[in-house]
Amino acid sequence: MTWIQEIRHIVGEEYVQTKQSSLLSYAYDATPNFNTKPEAVVAPASEQEIKEIVTVCANYQIPIVPRGSGTNLAAGTTPTQGGVVLLFHRMNRILELDEDNLTITVQPGVITGDICEAVEAKGLFYPPDPSSMKISTIGGNINENSGGLRGLKYGVTKDYVLGVNAVIANGDVIQAGGKNVKDVAGYDLTSLFVGSEGTLGIITEATLKLVPLPESKQTLLASFDSIERAAETVSKVIANKLTPATLEFIDRATIQAVEDYTHVGLPTDAEAVLLIEQDGPPSICEHDIQLIQSIAIEHEAISTQIAETEERATELREARRSALSALAKRSPTTILEDATVPRSEIATMVKAIEAIALEHDVKIATFGHAGDGNLHPTCMTDLRDKDEWERVEAAFAAIFRKAIDLGGTITGEHGVGEMKSPYLAWKVGDEGIQLMNQIKHAFDPDQIMNPGKIFHRSGGEVDE
Amino acid sequence: MTWIQEIRHIVGEEYVQTKQSSLLSYAYDATPNFNTKPEAVVAPASEQEIKEIVTVCANYQIPIVPRGSGTNLAAGTTPTQGGVVLLFHRMNRILELDEDNLTITVQPGVITGDICEAVEAKGLFYPPDPSSMKISTIGGNINENSGGLRGLKYGVTKDYVLGVNAVIANGDVIQAGGKNVKDVAGYDLTSLFVGSEGTLGIITEATLKLVPLPESKQTLLASFDSIERAAETVSKVIANKLTPATLEFIDRATIQAVEDYTHVGLPTDAEAVLLIEQDGPPSICEHDIQLIQSIAIEHEAISTQIAETEERATELREARRSALSALAKRSPTTILEDATVPRSEIATMVKAIEAIALEHDVKIATFGHAGDGNLHPTCMTDLRDKDEWERVEAAFAAIFRKAIDLGGTITGEHGVGEMKSPYLAWKVGDEGIQLMNQIKHAFDPDQIMNPGKIFHRSGGEVDE
Repeated sequence: MTWIQEIRHIVGEEYVQTKQSSLLSYAYDATPNFNTKPEAVVAPASEQEIKEIVTVCANYQIPIVPRGSGTNLAAGTTPTQGGVVLLFHRMNRILELDEDNLTITVQPGVITGDICEAVEAKGLFYPPDPSSMKISTIGGNINENSGGLRGLKYGVTKDYVLGVNAVIANGDVIQAGGKNVKDVAGYDLTSLFVGSEGTLGIITEATLKLVPLPESKQTLLASFDSIERAAETVSKVIANKLTPATLEFIDRATIQAVEDYTHVGLPTDAEAVLLIEQDGPPSICEHDIQLIQSIAIEHEAISTQIAETEERATELREARRSALSALAKRSPTTILEDATVPRSEIATMVKAIEAIALEHDVKIATFGHAGDGNLHPTCMTDLRDKDEWERVEAAFAAIFRKAIDLGGTITGEHGVGEMKSPYLAWKVGDEGIQLMNQIKHAFDPDQIMNPGKIFHRSGGEVDE
Repeated sequence: MTWIQEIRHIVGEEYVQTKQSSLLSYAYDATPNFNTKPEAVVAPASEQEIKEIVTVCANYQIPIVPRGSGTNLAAGTTPTQGGVVLLFHRMNRILELDEDNLTITVQPGVITGDICEAVEAKGLFYPPDPSSMKISTIGGNINENSGGLRGLKYGVTKDYVLGVNAVIANGDVIQAGGKNVKDVAGYDLTSLFVGSEGTLGIITEATLKLVPLPESKQTLLASFDSIERAAETVSKVIANKLTPATLEFIDRATIQAVEDYTHVGLPTDAEAVLLIEQDGPPSICEHDIQLIQSIAIEHEAISTQIAETEERATELREARRSALSALAKRSPTTILEDATVPRSEIATMVKAIEAIALEHDVKIATFGHAGDGNLHPTCMTDLRDKDEWERVEAAFAAIFRKAIDLGGTITGEHGVGEMKSPYLAWKVGDEGIQLMNQIKHAFDPDQIMNPGKIFHRSGGEVDE
């Protein structure tokens, strides 16, 4: 029996795809320029099946690449070394919503947006909200430690994962954490799995922390004729001990693209727009949003607008969430990055990105989460233009370098994947890479778990 | 040159203690029945000195035990295999309070209470508040992932550690994380160091997340004539989507001890007392605390009392914080445990603890953090009574077993240390122990970093 036959035996014929047309569909994720077909695409139905698949793959040294909905932007879910792509659409059940303990236990294939809807129906709230949440899976979000628009006030995925089950390369099922908010029994394996990009094991179940759903929301749009004024507004909001739920930044190029795409009435004459939301009890929301509005006006906002209705607020929020789609329509290839800096360095970083784009003669629009310094410089280019592509790569290297110099990081919420692996050493040092490699080895000595991701082939060095 | 001479050469004569009287002082921490002298007690002044000390210790295979203020309750900071105890009182500086990015960067020897005071002076807030915070160090808190009274609303130490520097056994300085709220560049080494009890490396610096200081606080004391009514009150508070800052439970025996010790007027006729605090904007605080009061009354509270003044609130808060000291006065030996269960299981667990105490003929009082299920069954005993001591150990084993059976954990906030290492496998399984052992090996192949802690000598098995 070949290994593919063995896997067919585990999950059933119909859940193993090996036709070229099927393999092609799973050769790439949302990252341009990475495209390698797997040898099989497998959809297991249970943790037990995953355990058996992993055992077969370990025996034959076959790479396993777990894939949620393939929205990854750093080539984290492309099978660049072939092998098996694991799908989770048959493991998409909410197993328990525990209202007493404020937890939800889910299988990895549940769409994150469905979790939000299920808990909101009970007056509860799962805050992490990556822009992809309507299509991305919770398993993918956990593997990538996804962020989103609410990072400043609510944190990111890791702040809500209380426990995971995972199958590691030797076939063991590791049960890390659980429903306990306080649990210090040994190393924090839960946090180690979160954001490990499928390189340590296959997550088969997760228990997430919930909080009460805020009673109300308020949304403010403020536009500025300079990036500095927008950034100063952000600083002043923080200095006033305010913690908005959302504090988004959009630059001129993105404003134009989003407006062309959504026609929601964004001020296309502005250099920068802030989209600010507060949630909580109505009196607090109102107080905070009005104070933020007055701070924006103090900092020479050219216009401010508090959404009068929930429809208008949704429109503005959706407009912001559409930024990638809007920019993607403007060129054959779009590269969305997520270099991140301490909040106080946002204006410096946005200016630096503009200068780098100019220097390398490439088109970069920037938007992102100003509240947590997580920016999305987005390059509109054409992969087929080899000369421009080289300039794009050089520009992004310069952007990563600048983020590091400002005390930031090469990736705030998208992950390292294969694409950013050459730059990881800039952030964590050769010592950090070596230690992470040793951790990887402890979990997966034969490198079958999503090989080639996080760790650069040449061992963490990058040509400059 | 001997290894001690080499270390003297690094830190200076006066910072290496080897006199028997000095060694005796560092032979134990706050855990009864663990007492082993180190060979030297060393107080380095810098990360560089620690790097050099670690290198010497690695060369000579000398154990290194980092120690904050020695308040550990699980024999986590006792030098049970001899070697060097590292002290951090010369590394007790706040390096930076960054009000723009809401972070504070500190050396490990800073007293946690001093961090709180420093940030509160700027209108900011560091929420983790272990009962020992007035004397314990932030380095100790990070190594143990300390909890405290505010876990339900604010989480624990790990939720506030954005980055650490640590020296690992090979002498490398690992810089994990930083000021960025969003950072997914590789594995989450920061979370791995937090709660690793000194077994992975020596923490030399940490960057902590701050939040705005709540504007006001309200404190409510509610007493009940049954544990169930108190527990139902807790459930109903959560069901009402309230998230109090503090939700403490005190049983009859603890109430009596605390009242005798503090004379603050606790209702000594009650079976259970809840101490509940809310913080936030005044209107919200008042609304929440009144709603909680009415929920308590609905659940047949025999008395409820909202603190009229901040002095009274402080008195009640300090009374609760004094529980361990109060109980410790009642017997030669006190063992404070921290078995933890999902919040919904508190009444069951408290009842089970009572039954276990009866069955083993030992005296156990219970108090703890009802909001997060983190209980502190506290045994009043006498170490010299060998027969009773055996019954105490059997009782605690039964308590840990019960916590696990209820979906809980053997330690919520104190750590595994050496004392609870025999029970770790009950929580994480043999697979979990094996994986943690491999992680330990990746960081510290020669087992010089706080050896014997977390991992039981016999390899994770426990005699039942």
